[in-house]
This record gives sequence, structure tokens and C-alpha cells, in this order.
Amino acid sequence: MNINNKPYRTIWEKKGNNRIIQIIDQRVLPHKFIIKDLLTVKDFYVAIKDMYVRGAPLIGVTAAYGMYIACIEAKNDNTLIFKSAEYLKSARPTAVNLQWAVESQLEIINNCKDLSIAKDKLLKNARRIAEEDIANCKKIGEYGCELIEAISKKKNGQTVNILTHCNAGWLATVDYGTATAPIYEAFSRGIKLHVWVDETRPRNQGAKLTSWELNQEGIPNTIIVDNAGGHLMQNKQVDLVIVGSDRTTYLGDVANKIGTYLKALAAKDNNIPFYVALPSSTIDWNIKDSADIPIEERNGNEVKYIDGLLDDEIKNVLISPIDSKVANYAFDVTPSRLVTGLITERGIIKANKNDIFRLFTDKKK
Amino acid sequence: MNINNKPYRTIWEKKGNNRIIQIIDQRVLPHKFIIKDLLTVKDFYVAIKDMYVRGAPLIGVTAAYGMYIACIEAKNDNTLIFKSAEYLKSARPTAVNLQWAVESQLEIINNCKDLSIAKDKLLKNARRIAEEDIANCKKIGEYGCELIEAISKKKNGQTVNILTHCNAGWLATVDYGTATAPIYEAFSRGIKLHVWVDETRPRNQGAKLTSWELNQEGIPNTIIVDNAGGHLMQNKQVDLVIVGSDRTTYLGDVANKIGTYLKALAAKDNNIPFYVALPSSTIDWNIKDSADIPIEERNGNEVKYIDGLLDDEIKNVLISPIDSKVANYAFDVTPSRLVTGLITERGIIKANKNDIFRLFTDKKK
Repeated sequence: MNINNKPYRTIWEKKGNNRIIQIIDQRVLPHKFIIKDLLTVKDFYVAIKDMYVRGAPLIGVTAAYGMYIACIEAKNDNTLIFKSAEYLKSARPTAVNLQWAVESQLEIINNCKDLSIAKDKLLKNARRIAEEDIANCKKIGEYGCELIEAISKKKNGQTVNILTHCNAGWLATVDYGTATAPIYEAFSRGIKLHVWVDETRPRNQGAKLTSWELNQEGIPNTIIVDNAGGHLMQNKQVDLVIVGSDRTTYLGDVANKIGTYLKALAAKDNNIPFYVALPSSTIDWNIKDSADIPIEERNGNEVKYIDGLLDDEIKNVLISPIDSKVANYAFDVTPSRLVTGLITERGIIKANKNDIFRLFTDKKK
Repeated sequence: MNINNKPYRTIWEKKGNNRIIQIIDQRVLPHKFIIKDLLTVKDFYVAIKDMYVRGAPLIGVTAAYGMYIACIEAKNDNTLIFKSAEYLKSARPTAVNLQWAVESQLEIINNCKDLSIAKDKLLKNARRIAEEDIANCKKIGEYGCELIEAISKKKNGQTVNILTHCNAGWLATVDYGTATAPIYEAFSRGIKLHVWVDETRPRNQGAKLTSWELNQEGIPNTIIVDNAGGHLMQNKQVDLVIVGSDRTTYLGDVANKIGTYLKALAAKDNNIPFYVALPSSTIDWNIKDSADIPIEERNGNEVKYIDGLLDDEIKNVLISPIDSKVANYAFDVTPSRLVTGLITERGIIKANKNDIFRLFTDKKK
């Protein structure tokens, strides 16, 4: 997608030196646009943990490249590379793509006698994962676009209002996004649409990233506080909800950014379709009970303090009583009964075991 | 209630000069504690509009005092005082107490031949409204406490976890609060409890006011983002929800701070009692269809910028892309079907017309 009319991905190999991986430092968006070099496994760990990069698919691709760099760092020390794998996996607990991407690379390592042989294969595999992510997002966009088209038709071409939570945009993937892919696709086909962007406290990925990337593409959007979505739905100002997912169980329960569940409840209460866009890499084939999904608790200072722009500098200000306790759960689980459907790279299905297994028989283990 | 162990109300007549009304400037809490003198009708208008004072009951009392000052300002110009009445009423649209308090004062003016005679009566009536608010909140506390006691008993004295949204605390009334009154009462009776405080974007009255006032009274509380309540309810970490109300229709539909509806949905979905604490002054006896309640739209900069403390100064920082559109609805309506009960100064009732009319036959017109 475009930034100031120049096409970008969220992660790429540095021109002329593929031992340096470059990312956009998403922590300082929308105020600053900074490209960051990742040189060491620690760089990758920090980039994932401290959310220079975020979004389940992008975390996966970053980790895949991280394993490639880990292989270079390890030289011929096999112990070290397995240590690096554990280290990278520990950076964030909820997104299943992180585990999945690291495991995908470990399989290659296990099948190679020698790390020097593995190295090139790891790079290729990281590239493959990245390209696959792009292709998947493109397909999600095409399938999801049909939903938007159908609503547009029903409304005789009047603006389709779509609500989204957090950033499941192209900044959360390598390109196109998951929840935003259908929006970009519909917009490119000339469908009139408008996006309600939940600001998504505490890290405000909606306000800071989703609105920003939609602006870059010229897509009409309005930022609202997370509290407002229910009111808009009650007042028929939302036609469709599309969110992403950090982990979806094979029964169709969806772990996504904290607050998603509340929007799903409101959509249900107001008879508004609630869709989850996800590449199949986000499906967890092992966990049956969504209560077993580890829900990340992040540092309370993300709630108590906030970054904002003041005199062209990013400042961190206190927005709570200094002595108050805070809790900071990063995700919640939306039960499948509240999900109208899953938009995947292979089509739109109901959020249940039968449909998921039918479409992805080859993926489950 | 106490601030640094010194008892305060939220509004009072200046010692030795009852032509000056004093309030706590709630805009700068919790970072600064500033008392503000209100001398002119314009001061009162600004205090209400710009939210030096907020909360339906406190807005009502402030407006009542405002009408007393309006009478002094008007001297013997009857036109002027009616103008002031309209002016004050226009400061905020949603809280019914504002209209109600001004009307109550206008009734006195209409019954007096002479504004100089009205003046003392207006002061007395403002005092009466303030004292009545305190008495009502005290009663709400006593009735609501029974709910908390019952849960505490059922949990064998284990901590009762109460979730609240926005600030329906003593800072929203003259003293005790509405939603917090049962909490203060239960705490004073030695019941073990803990409060989950929704930060309540965009103005963060939960984080800035509710947590602060609970801290002042030593009541255990934890600030969470508005997105988190559903997750906590799913995980059995909430026993009871109590919120306030800015306007309740006589059918039991509740207009309250934006986001309340989402918490009511989550409470329903998890079988958690959802109570609304309100003095009967908050009941609207005229509006039947809650869609007719005017929902205030506030300045979008409340969403786009935020106040926070930096180097002991309050700074306003930008937290969205500068060129993004924002919408800022201040309230939503929770339909009566989601409300377990109303905690009023005359007891706890179901949120329906029969129960409301039965308890308040004398109040409806």
C-alpha cells in the first residue's frame, strides 16, 4: 500500500543487503515515519515485544526472518538457534502466528544437517511466508468485498458503513491487511464506503494506525472512542463489522484485541453482520476450549500513560492518578455464536468446526 | 466525602459571602486540586458547559445556584432572568436535571411579583435541592448496599467485585454519589469489596475522577480501559455492575455515558446483575421513546487530543492523525430489558413503567 504515494510493505530486506531486515516503527505512527533496521535476534525480539511491529500475520513474518538472522548468529551452534527460537516465541503469547512461523523455520533446521545449509532455506521460507501472507490477504479482500458489494447493492449504492476495531490493516500484515483488505478492494472497485475506526485503547492502534493507513489510501473514515460503537449500531449507522483475529480456535472462537467481544455483542443485539477476517495461519488446530488461549497481560503503564504529540515531539503523559492500580488485558475471546462468518483466503465460512475443517482439511494436523 | 482527610462537598457557598458559589474544578483532577469561584451567570454556564462540574445531579444543583445569581444580576429586569434561564439550560442537552432545576427556580420566579423577593427564595430552593440531593444519595447508598451485602454473603465474605462506568461518584453529585453511594456505604460497614473502574473515554472521568475519589476514601480499585469489562465479566471477575444515569425515561430506558450500553450487553450475556443508581430527579416523565432523548455531540478534539501530566504541568497532546475525522457522542441509551433494576432514593425497583409509577406517583406530572 502507499505512504505518501510511495508503495511500501511493512517488512522487507534492505536493498543490497538481505542480512538487514527493515520495518516501519509503528510505535511512533502517525506522528513520525521511521524505518528501523533489525540486525540481531534481540532486535527482532524487541521489535515484536515492544510492538515496533504488531498484528498476528506481521508478527509471524517478522519471527520467520528473525529465525533466519538467528541462524546467521548461531554460526554452527545448534543449541543457540533453539534458544533463539524459544526467545522469539516468548516475545508475545497470544498470536498463534508467532509460534507457527518459528515452528515452520525449526522444521527446516531439523531437516538440515548443517546450519550453513539451513540459512538460505530459512531466508527462502521467510520470503515464502511473507508472499503467502500477501496472497492470502489479497484473497481475503476479494472474498470479503463480496459482502460489501451485496450491502452496497441493497442500499442502492448509498455509503456502506463498516466498523472495525484495532488495526487489522496492512500495517498488521505484510500488505493489504486482513479486516481492511475487503475495504481496500471495495474502494478500488468504486463502492461508496466509510469506516468507523475504534480508537482501541490502550494502545490506540485504531486511531494511530488504521485511520492513518486509510487516510493514506484516501478512504473516508472517522475515529470514535471504543465506547461509541454500540450507540452507532443502535442508530443504524453501521452496516457491517469486520475485525481481525490473533488466534481462532478450530471451533470458531476468536481471540482478538480487547474490546472485540463487546462490539460482537452489540452487532448481535442490533442484527448487524459481524465478520472476522483471518488467514488460516491464525487458526489454532490444537486448542479446543477458548479458555485455554493465553491472554496477554501487558504493562499497566500502557493504561496509565499515553504518548502524544506536543510541539512536534512525542511525549508520554500521565492520564490517571499516579497511585492508582491498573490492569491491562490485551485480548478477549468472542465466542463463535456471535460471529456471522470468517473471511479466509479460501472463502467465507461459518465460525464452526465443520466449516473450518471442510475448508482446511489439509491444514489441520 | 474526604479529600486529603478533609470533608468536602462538590459545591458550596463561600464562607461569609453567599453571592459567591464555589466548586471544585474537575477538569484538572486528579493532577491538580483547584477551587473555582462562580460569580456571574456566565461563570455558571461555562462551568457546566466546559465541565468544571459534571454529573447530572451536580449539574442540577449548579444550575439552581446559577438561577439565584441570575436573579441578582437581573436586578428587576424580568426579561433578563428568563434569558439567563434559557442560557443555562442550553449549556448541556442530555442531563434532565439541568432543565428540572432551572424550571424549579422559574416556578418560584413566576410566583413572585418582585425579583427582590424571589432572590432569597431562589437561594433557599438551591440549598434545598442540594440537601435533597445529598439525602437522596444517602438513601441510594443504603438501598444499594443491600445488593452488595447479599453478594458478599453468597461469596462467604470474599471480595465483591463491582464494575462502574464513568463517574457517578460523589464528584457527580453534591456528596456520596449515585453509583458509588452503595460502595461507600458497604465499605463503611466493613464489607470486602473492589471496584473495576472503566477509564471512560474520551474524557476519562473514570480514571481521573472515580479512581481518585475511591483512593481518597481508601477503597480498593483498579482502572481498566473501556474495552476490558467484557473480558472480566466472561472470566467471572465481576459480581455486580452499578452505573449512574443522566436521564431515565419513565419506561426504564437509561441514557448514560457513552459505552454504558456495551457493558449492559456484556452483563446480560454473562448473567451479571446490572443496576442503575439514580435519584428520581433524573427520571424524565415526558419522553416515552428513548430515541427522543437528545444525545449530546461534543467537540471532536476531546477524542483527538488528551490532557495529561508532564513535568507537573497539564499538557494537551495529539493522539490521532492530525487530519483524521472524529465523532464524539457523549451518551448512549441502555434499553430497560438490559437493566436488572433501578436503585432510587425510595428503594430498588425494576426498570419498567409500572414499578416506576408505583414508587413515584407523586412525582409524575
